[in-house]
Amino acid sequence: VKLESQIEFLAIVDKLKSVNRATKPIGLSRQENSAEHSWHVMLTALVLKEYANEQIDILKVLKMLALHDIPEIECGDTMHYKKINSEERKLEETAAATKLFSELPKEQADEFLSLWKEFEDQTSPESKFANAVDRLMAFILNPRNEGGSWMEFNISAEMAQAKNSHIEDGSKEIWEYVRRIIDGAREKGFLA
Amino acid sequence: VKLESQIEFLAIVDKLKSVNRATKPIGLSRQENSAEHSWHVMLTALVLKEYANEQIDILKVLKMLALHDIPEIECGDTMHYKKINSEERKLEETAAATKLFSELPKEQADEFLSLWKEFEDQTSPESKFANAVDRLMAFILNPRNEGGSWMEFNISAEMAQAKNSHIEDGSKEIWEYVRRIIDGAREKGFLA
Repeated sequence: VKLESQIEFLAIVDKLKSVNRATKPIGLSRQENSAEHSWHVMLTALVLKEYANEQIDILKVLKMLALHDIPEIECGDTMHYKKINSEERKLEETAAATKLFSELPKEQADEFLSLWKEFEDQTSPESKFANAVDRLMAFILNPRNEGGSWMEFNISAEMAQAKNSHIEDGSKEIWEYVRRIIDGAREKGFLA
Repeated sequence: VKLESQIEFLAIVDKLKSVNRATKPIGLSRQENSAEHSWHVMLTALVLKEYANEQIDILKVLKMLALHDIPEIECGDTMHYKKINSEERKLEETAAATKLFSELPKEQADEFLSLWKEFEDQTSPESKFANAVDRLMAFILNPRNEGGSWMEFNISAEMAQAKNSHIEDGSKEIWEYVRRIIDGAREKGFLA
């Protein structure tokens, strides 16, 4: 029965494969979904872990990233530049996380909810690094898609800089890289 | 330059989002891709790690699963039931893994190639468990898709049993679960 409730959870979260994001995979006309994004960002965390500002537990980072988008199954994805940190949205997402994780045995549900909240809070070293790599992904995809979602939503270099500066809290080196990408994208007209 | 070569690797492996598998996400008419599958199987390993037969390093399992399908970018996915363990296919996949990982700094390329080979060899406790959860995925998706790829490719219960019995090497409990699913699927006509 325990194993079956865990499998049921895994079947429910399969729906993350239907949640679309603003970005597109490189060279494809379709939008990226949050499940394939989650794999990509987990691999990115593994590859770039040496650039974390602080000592991090990479297993904890991977757990957070495996879970970070699951509430979108109930709430949908909101593009980073359109996010309003409203109390209402936060409550909705917390309710969704609580509901979805509650399919799991209590101990596991508690662990996952706690990891998800830690990711959202962006205060622990692991959370800061996980959020930094999560924000990095658009800077890998969009420059290789002629500006991609930046062009589509008319994002300026100033917005890109302002809305992503917390990357620096997780990794100074990744933030320096992102700033170079922003400068290059502005020159190419990919960022207004 | 080091960071840039790592980012270039992460851009190249974005192509995994275009590699289609035989299975479909639950309720969708499109095929699943190997990137979203990789996220799903990594989350499954995290949720079910307590069922591993042997003591496992779950971080190593997650690393293997993040990488396990990457050679498909060059070789494509082969459905499990159509796999011939030919020396030729093995050489092709090893060449693809070597080529793709060689975008990374040497030390990381060596680590990733070694992890990929360990996954393929199915001899270490981590590899046995990682392969068990990888094989479990079709038993989560297909019963919820009216038989899914089993129906499409006319797979029998005997084939399902024979071609997946190595799940038992990674987890006796997951194998028992899979056997119950096979029995149920036969009764429903999802497996011939």
